[in-house]
Amino acid sequence: MTDFAPEEYRARLHRAQAMMDRAGLAALLLTTEPEVRYFTGFLTRFWESPARPWFLIVPASGDPVAVIPSIGAHLMGQSWITDIRTWRSPQPGDDGISLLRDALAEVDGPVGVPSGAETHLRMPLDTWAALQTAATFRDDAGIMHRLRLIKSDAEIDRIATICQIANAAFDRVPEVIGAGLPLSEAFRRFQILLLTEGADWVPYLAGAAGQGGYGDVISPATDAPLMDGDVLMLDTGAVKAGYFCDFDRNFAVGDVGQAAHDAHARLIEATEVGFEAAQPGATAADLFHAMDRVVTGGAGGSDAGRSGHGLGMQLTEWPSLMPADHTVLEPGMVLTLEPGIAVAPGRMLVHEENIVITADGPQWLSIPSDEHMVQL
Amino acid sequence: MTDFAPEEYRARLHRAQAMMDRAGLAALLLTTEPEVRYFTGFLTRFWESPARPWFLIVPASGDPVAVIPSIGAHLMGQSWITDIRTWRSPQPGDDGISLLRDALAEVDGPVGVPSGAETHLRMPLDTWAALQTAATFRDDAGIMHRLRLIKSDAEIDRIATICQIANAAFDRVPEVIGAGLPLSEAFRRFQILLLTEGADWVPYLAGAAGQGGYGDVISPATDAPLMDGDVLMLDTGAVKAGYFCDFDRNFAVGDVGQAAHDAHARLIEATEVGFEAAQPGATAADLFHAMDRVVTGGAGGSDAGRSGHGLGMQLTEWPSLMPADHTVLEPGMVLTLEPGIAVAPGRMLVHEENIVITADGPQWLSIPSDEHMVQL
Repeated sequence: MTDFAPEEYRARLHRAQAMMDRAGLAALLLTTEPEVRYFTGFLTRFWESPARPWFLIVPASGDPVAVIPSIGAHLMGQSWITDIRTWRSPQPGDDGISLLRDALAEVDGPVGVPSGAETHLRMPLDTWAALQTAATFRDDAGIMHRLRLIKSDAEIDRIATICQIANAAFDRVPEVIGAGLPLSEAFRRFQILLLTEGADWVPYLAGAAGQGGYGDVISPATDAPLMDGDVLMLDTGAVKAGYFCDFDRNFAVGDVGQAAHDAHARLIEATEVGFEAAQPGATAADLFHAMDRVVTGGAGGSDAGRSGHGLGMQLTEWPSLMPADHTVLEPGMVLTLEPGIAVAPGRMLVHEENIVITADGPQWLSIPSDEHMVQL
Repeated sequence: MTDFAPEEYRARLHRAQAMMDRAGLAALLLTTEPEVRYFTGFLTRFWESPARPWFLIVPASGDPVAVIPSIGAHLMGQSWITDIRTWRSPQPGDDGISLLRDALAEVDGPVGVPSGAETHLRMPLDTWAALQTAATFRDDAGIMHRLRLIKSDAEIDRIATICQIANAAFDRVPEVIGAGLPLSEAFRRFQILLLTEGADWVPYLAGAAGQGGYGDVISPATDAPLMDGDVLMLDTGAVKAGYFCDFDRNFAVGDVGQAAHDAHARLIEATEVGFEAAQPGATAADLFHAMDRVVTGGAGGSDAGRSGHGLGMQLTEWPSLMPADHTVLEPGMVLTLEPGIAVAPGRMLVHEENIVITADGPQWLSIPSDEHMVQL
């Protein structure tokens, strides 16, 4: 198991328990991959299968209780968790629910369930309905959100490592990608570079290519060949030891035109301004406005809805760099700076870097690009 | 957009609408990646980010309505869907909900939401609570489950393609993996093989290595080197054009001992027996029992809970090959056959193949292994 020391999990548990105490919660009930992993270290790609539910109860005092399919018992048994209760899943009609009810019966008081933005319940709705008599459920008072906003040094080390891997892969793009190559093949080769440089896997790769800019940043690759004049953008969320990077690079295929070069330089300037603004005490909105002033003169945003976000166990986490998010930056927050700029109608460029907030100010986790697009 | 012809989506819609009619539902409300993609073809790895909710309303008459973040408008605009309503997400306090309420107000009758096994609602619980006054919600009467159980010829073609790619990658394992290589590096090299052979990406790779067998099939790789006597298992869910394969191969690193070879041969025999049993009209449970008789003499299963499952847009889908699943096999169902066998306490082997049910009986989608483990 690619695990932290037990002290890391104990520290997380104690912070959670202090928050539960203040919120009047007797426990948390967790069902999703990052929530379960946050307290246990349970790291597996098996969550890709929706077949089986997984549950973790984090009580306000005492140690977590894992109520999980028996297929996970061997792996969970290697973690610091000792109270592991299993059933043979899938089990129609009672897929762990009676076991979970028994475990919840040991909890004396309301049970918090993450219910706010960027969360969901990984459990069938009919199971959730049947569970309502097992405990008094409330939202988790934002506890998981607040816990995960601040990364430990051990977490930051892991994010820094995968950022270095992605930087090395981006540096090698000119070796393997150029005019004439289908975009789909460029995507494959870049994923191979990431793995070659040490990524464990590549959960996320998006990108685009278009004459002097592209139409969006979330499309899958087509088989259309890269052409002279294309700006190629590759944006990856690669993973090492369970932690993500999330940044992109723009490449000029031949002569992309001055407008594209100017747009890129503007994005780099915006990113640098965002970085300088990323001091403890500033807000997520402050970073948005600092970058937006450079990119649009202060017009207030784009269809992306934000110009950066948190990063860690997931590709995107709280906060969002946008006018409505007043999260105050604190040491230990890991963020992406991700300004976008319109070059022409339906044609844009987006740039992204990763940073961490420290008591002394921001630090780069990705190696920041300069204003010149790398030429392919 | 890697898309099917509009007729494919129209056929899916018409089947869904006939089912809605029988179930007394005026619409379906869908929130997850495979559900939305099933009716729209909207294919993007952007779902990796939990930040934004996505909604699709499939009415009992008329065309689907997409209520989605504006960052997805360009990509959704390339699909056959014409009624696309967008908002700038994330938007705290009203993240698409008023837009969704307006769209639901156009629906005259109960709205079905997938609520059974292997489903979840991809929406914060507080949003779901706030939405309860917008419509009368019920479960979807199993409509999404029943629709997705039967694959179209176009879908089967895609699954066959990625199975061929994975077969080619497995064939090349001896070129790059052998004794002394850390398991983590074996995982990387196998993912590189999959990409090299044409996979778009590799959402799932699990595996294990151990002396004469392994402890589980869901663990991430450690850095421990492969040793003489290890059985190495690699199990992949790779994707091409949005469809998964899901099968594994066992490899013998040097001399793994007769017990491991015998166990492997038994698994191959079980898989062949399962294949022969996979006739239209047989049940998922029948396949389980057919394989279980070979593996255990009929003891009735293992900690995995099942010995195979459906496969398609997701790594695992309904049905489950297990005693409690009485799904009747029909042409168009794509299944994995995945028997496991205990070699010693805490030591097992698992073998997996992919098949499709046709009117004339089962067909292999993966190229079935013979009883001899490939030697590394």
